[in-house]
Amino acid sequence: MKHVPVPHVSLITVIEVVAILVGAFSGFVEARRKRMDVVGVFTVAFITAFGGGTLRDILLDRRPLFWVLHQEYAILIFILALVAAPLMRTLRQILSERLIVVADAIGLGLFAVAGVSQAQAAHMPLFIASMMGVITGIFGGVLRDIVCNEVPMVFRDGKPYAICAFFGCWMYIGLQYTDVSDDFALWASAACITVLRLVTWKFELHLHYHKN
Amino acid sequence: MKHVPVPHVSLITVIEVVAILVGAFSGFVEARRKRMDVVGVFTVAFITAFGGGTLRDILLDRRPLFWVLHQEYAILIFILALVAAPLMRTLRQILSERLIVVADAIGLGLFAVAGVSQAQAAHMPLFIASMMGVITGIFGGVLRDIVCNEVPMVFRDGKPYAICAFFGCWMYIGLQYTDVSDDFALWASAACITVLRLVTWKFELHLHYHKN
Amino acid sequence: MKHVPVPHVSLITVIEVVAILVGAFSGFVEARRKRMDVVGVFTVAFITAFGGGTLRDILLDRRPLFWVLHQEYAILIFILALVAAPLMRTLRQILSERLIVVADAIGLGLFAVAGVSQAQAAHMPLFIASMMGVITGIFGGVLRDIVCNEVPMVFRDGKPYAICAFFGCWMYIGLQYTDVSDDFALWASAACITVLRLVTWKFELHLHYHKN
Repeated sequence: MKHVPVPHVSLITVIEVVAILVGAFSGFVEARRKRMDVVGVFTVAFITAFGGGTLRDILLDRRPLFWVLHQEYAILIFILALVAAPLMRTLRQILSERLIVVADAIGLGLFAVAGVSQAQAAHMPLFIASMMGVITGIFGGVLRDIVCNEVPMVFRDGKPYAICAFFGCWMYIGLQYTDVSDDFALWASAACITVLRLVTWKFELHLHYHKN
Repeated sequence: MKHVPVPHVSLITVIEVVAILVGAFSGFVEARRKRMDVVGVFTVAFITAFGGGTLRDILLDRRPLFWVLHQEYAILIFILALVAAPLMRTLRQILSERLIVVADAIGLGLFAVAGVSQAQAAHMPLFIASMMGVITGIFGGVLRDIVCNEVPMVFRDGKPYAICAFFGCWMYIGLQYTDVSDDFALWASAACITVLRLVTWKFELHLHYHKN
Repeated sequence: MKHVPVPHVSLITVIEVVAILVGAFSGFVEARRKRMDVVGVFTVAFITAFGGGTLRDILLDRRPLFWVLHQEYAILIFILALVAAPLMRTLRQILSERLIVVADAIGLGLFAVAGVSQAQAAHMPLFIASMMGVITGIFGGVLRDIVCNEVPMVFRDGKPYAICAFFGCWMYIGLQYTDVSDDFALWASAACITVLRLVTWKFELHLHYHKN
């Protein structure tokens, strides 16, 4: 398997935890909005945080799954679910929408680039690899919405969420044909997705079909 | 793995493309009915076209998946999704319901027979193999409806859609105990499913439980 | 793979059949409530009976699946689906709610303990193994509710269903650090889940978050 470089272990661990917590938090919010109990809150948070990567690994037939290797993340979400009700009241006071969007955009970039990199390590053709990157980035939220009995938000709000991930995946693929190091390609592409996402959020860009 | 015979490569490629396009088209229609954006339209079309076969391959633990081997189909659906809005207006004018039903019936036959054949190649027992055939034929639509937040149509409309596939799968299994070639068994069973489906459509046959 | 002991083959077969039939029965009920046809009734019953174990085996990458090894169970559910309408009218007269809850509690205990045992045989870390036990016990019902277009009952009714399974899974894990035999640990933990479930049902215990 292709080595996915981890230049700054402590930094990437921090970012990884942030990305997972942001995913879990969006699961908490949706599960509580549906008046779920503690079992539902834990499950939906877990699915939101890990669903995209798990679906990618099942499609690629990769094992062990990320959360099997790192059960500490599952335990962390479990503990958070136990204290979710008071936690969320506090979090909503502390966290501005801006902060959540920024953290989510960072998570999207990291998950998508990790996805395309691992798909290429599994010898996927290029277009499929870019799809795997997008799946890793967005399917946590898709599965969350399916379990919560909603049409997936990312399929209907017209915000270019998946499309930012898609462009970043192709940027990563494109950079492999240049002289830049794989490290640089990974970080630059993830950063590009994050910035694209934030710009399109800031300017409220929408992509809708013409009415027909 | 058992060799699945492909007697006329050009013909089977044409039929394959038609079957996939019909699946994708039904995904387009449903996604647009739910007012999805381009990401949703692509994803739902993709899931409708490939979901049944992908679920079968995950259950059988077969890799690579069909659409990984043939990324051109994923790219085709991607391009179609980009032009889906004007495309669908045109298509609806060109395509009669009759034409869509015929193409869909052909796809059902081919997918189901391919599914049972591959399940037998993976040494599934007979009843499970027939289930895998039906799964291949119908679960694209089932997953489409789940993602679109509907009770799957094929489970509630009482039309003998899955049942036609089921009969054809057992016809294929039965023909293996005769002297006919595997080629003939495949094509005859697929044709039988298509004809059964068209006949039950023409005469509006329904299978409902007695009221209780 | 770790040997899962089967001390009394005839007894465990009886219990297994009962657990599967109870799962299938709850699928029948939900599918009929949604006015599904015979295809839907069979599929939903099948998913309810085998969905939890199948999801666990996909996550663990174990094959062959239980229902592939035992196609007689699939055939049994198929036959029951064909006669579901008159069957259910009769069953509802014969079966009291009490009987169904008891049978379901037995099934929960057996499925959960089997799940954690098989996850440990696949070298899962302890917390993940306990999650696999709970998944085996509850995800049949979760998938049933998703296919039936409902928010999964087990995530929102506040009844400590999954939590009973979770405690029993940890009891099984804990007993491995004592001198008791693996056989005893399995049966005692399954019994503990069943009793816990029945006690919480009897006293209508609920676990809800404080309102917030």
